[in-house]
Amino acid sequence: MTVPAPIAWASGSIRILDQTALPVEERYVQLTSLEEVARAIETLAIRGAPLIGIAAAYGVAMAAGRRVGGSVGQVVTNAIVRLGGTRPTAVNLHRALARMEAVGLRTGGDAEALLAEARRIHEEDAVMCRRIGEAGLPLVPDGAVVMTICNAGVLATGGIGTALAPVYLAHEAGRRVEVIVPETRPLLQGARLTAWELARSGIACTLIADGMIASRLRRADVTCVLTGADRIAANGDFANKVGTYGLALAAREHDVPLFVAAPGTTVDVACPTGDAIPIEARDASEITGFGGQRTAPEVPVWNPAFDVTPATLVRAFLTDRGRVDPAQLAWRFAA
Amino acid sequence: MTVPAPIAWASGSIRILDQTALPVEERYVQLTSLEEVARAIETLAIRGAPLIGIAAAYGVAMAAGRRVGGSVGQVVTNAIVRLGGTRPTAVNLHRALARMEAVGLRTGGDAEALLAEARRIHEEDAVMCRRIGEAGLPLVPDGAVVMTICNAGVLATGGIGTALAPVYLAHEAGRRVEVIVPETRPLLQGARLTAWELARSGIACTLIADGMIASRLRRADVTCVLTGADRIAANGDFANKVGTYGLALAAREHDVPLFVAAPGTTVDVACPTGDAIPIEARDASEITGFGGQRTAPEVPVWNPAFDVTPATLVRAFLTDRGRVDPAQLAWRFAA
Repeated sequence: MTVPAPIAWASGSIRILDQTALPVEERYVQLTSLEEVARAIETLAIRGAPLIGIAAAYGVAMAAGRRVGGSVGQVVTNAIVRLGGTRPTAVNLHRALARMEAVGLRTGGDAEALLAEARRIHEEDAVMCRRIGEAGLPLVPDGAVVMTICNAGVLATGGIGTALAPVYLAHEAGRRVEVIVPETRPLLQGARLTAWELARSGIACTLIADGMIASRLRRADVTCVLTGADRIAANGDFANKVGTYGLALAAREHDVPLFVAAPGTTVDVACPTGDAIPIEARDASEITGFGGQRTAPEVPVWNPAFDVTPATLVRAFLTDRGRVDPAQLAWRFAA
Repeated sequence: MTVPAPIAWASGSIRILDQTALPVEERYVQLTSLEEVARAIETLAIRGAPLIGIAAAYGVAMAAGRRVGGSVGQVVTNAIVRLGGTRPTAVNLHRALARMEAVGLRTGGDAEALLAEARRIHEEDAVMCRRIGEAGLPLVPDGAVVMTICNAGVLATGGIGTALAPVYLAHEAGRRVEVIVPETRPLLQGARLTAWELARSGIACTLIADGMIASRLRRADVTCVLTGADRIAANGDFANKVGTYGLALAAREHDVPLFVAAPGTTVDVACPTGDAIPIEARDASEITGFGGQRTAPEVPVWNPAFDVTPATLVRAFLTDRGRVDPAQLAWRFAA
C-alpha cells in the first residue's frame, strides 16, 4: 500500500493527514486536545464514516490520558458528548463512542484500557476492510470499469477502504481495473482524495464532474458501481454522500449493478427505513465559494451532506460478513 | 427587466457582458475583430445556444464592415468558417451563419445588409423568447417551484431566456415563484449566471450542488423542470448541458414533468436521433482546477460539455410555435 495511513496514534497525541489540504499538499497535523479532534472531524480534515469512528475513539483515549478539566469520569463523558455531536449521520461514530464509554465505565476511565480499545477499533476496521474487499473481489474481474462516488478508500478508513477495497485487491491480484471518479461537489472528495489515492496506488482512474455520471453510465462499459455508506437502515435503505441517489437511479436505468460496501457497524437496525436517518446540513459557503473566491451571488443554499438511496436500488451489500442481500440485512446484523 | 443585455451592437464593434467574470464582476468588453468574437465564444464569455448565434451573426457583419484581409467575399467566408468552428453542438450557430451567408451572397457582402440581418436575428430571438414564455406560463402557477439547470435565461439569449422565460412572465404577472438552481459544474453557469440573473430580477432561488438534484426532486414539492436545449433531434432527443440527462431520470422517478424550452431554430430535423448530435469535448483543466488552484491530481478527465436526453423523458417542448409534443416535433419543424 503506497497510500499513507490517514491516522496514527503518536505517543499521547493523534497524527492525522489533513484531508482538506489534498491533493495540493500532503500535510500532517498533531492533534493534542479534545477540541482539536472535534474540529478536525467537523472541518473534514478527517472524514469517512469508519475513520471518524477511529478518530473519536483515539480522541477519548487522549482526553483520558491528559485528564484536563475534572475527574477522569467527567473528562471521558465530556469527550464522548463533544465528539458525538460533531457529525450526525454516520453511525460508526456513535458505535465507537459507545464502546469507549463501556470501557471507561468498566475501568474507571483507565487511560491505558481506553487506548487499547481505540487501537482495537482501529485494527478491527483494517480487518473489516479486507473482508469487504474479499466479498467484492468477484465483482472486479480483469478489465473491469468501476464507478464510485466521494471517497470510500484508504483515506476514509483504518485499512484499504470499503468501496475501493475490492479494487485494491483486484489490483493486487494483477487485474487491470479502471475507476470512474465523480469529483463529488461541494467538497470534491472524489477529485481531491479518491483520484489522489488511486493515482498513488498506480490504479487507472478517470475523473468526471457529477453531472456526467448518467451519460458515462449510458456508455454501457461500466462493470459495476461501488459506493460506501454512512448509515444503513434495517430495510436496506442507506445514507451516503449526496449524489449517490442520483447515481443509483442512473445505474438502474443502464442495468449497472450497484453494490454498497460497508462494515457491519454501519448497519443501524434501530433505523427502520432511510426516512429515520438524520441528514447533516452543512454551511452554504461550501457551495457559494471556492478557495476564498465567490462562485455565486448571495442567494439561499440547500446543502445536505448526504442523501438516502432506497434498498430497491441496491444489488447487494458487501460487508465484513460477506455479501448480503438487502432483504437479509436486518437479521444478519441484528444487535 | 433588470438584467443587463448580454450583447449589443456598438457602432462597428460588439459590446458583450463577459460571462466568465460573473458573479464577482459585471465587466463589459468591446470585441473589435473576428478573432476576438471567436475567442469570446470558445472561452464562454458569450454562451447559450441562441446567444452564440446572435454573436456569430454580429461577428460576420463586423468582419464585413472592417473588411480586413482580402475581398469582401473572402472576408465573409472566412468569418463564417472561423465562427462555425467554435462550438460543435448548438445548431443555432449554424442556422445564424447560414442566414448571414445567404445575405452575403445575395448582396455581394454588403456590410449594411449583413448588419441588418444580424439585427433581425437578434430581434427575432427576443420575440421567440417571449413566445416560449407564453407557451410555458401555464406551467408556472402561483407558488410554483421550478427546477432548471445551467443557464437558459437572459444571459443565454437575445431576450428573456428560454427555460427561464415562463418564470419571468409568471413573475411579471405577480405570481410567486421559486427556482431551484443546480450550480452546473464544471463551469458553474447555474451558480454564476442563473442565480445572478434571478437575484437581479427579485425572483427567489435556491442554489444546490448538482449531486443534490435527485434528493431535491424527491421532496415532492417541485412543480416542473424547465431546461433549455442546444440541439433537438427529429425524434425529440435533445442535447443540453451535461447533467440534464441525470436530472431527467430523477424527474421521471418522482413524477415531475420535464419541459424543454427552445426556439424552433434549435430543432435539427437532419439529425434523426440524439446519437447523431456531435458532443463537444472540453479541456480537462475545467475539472482539475478552479481559479488557478488545483482540485485534483494529474489524472485523465472526461469532460463532455453536453449530454443527450431521450425524447421519452420529455413531457413537451415549449417553442416559439407553442407547446409541442415530442412525437409532433419533426413535422411541426420540418424544413
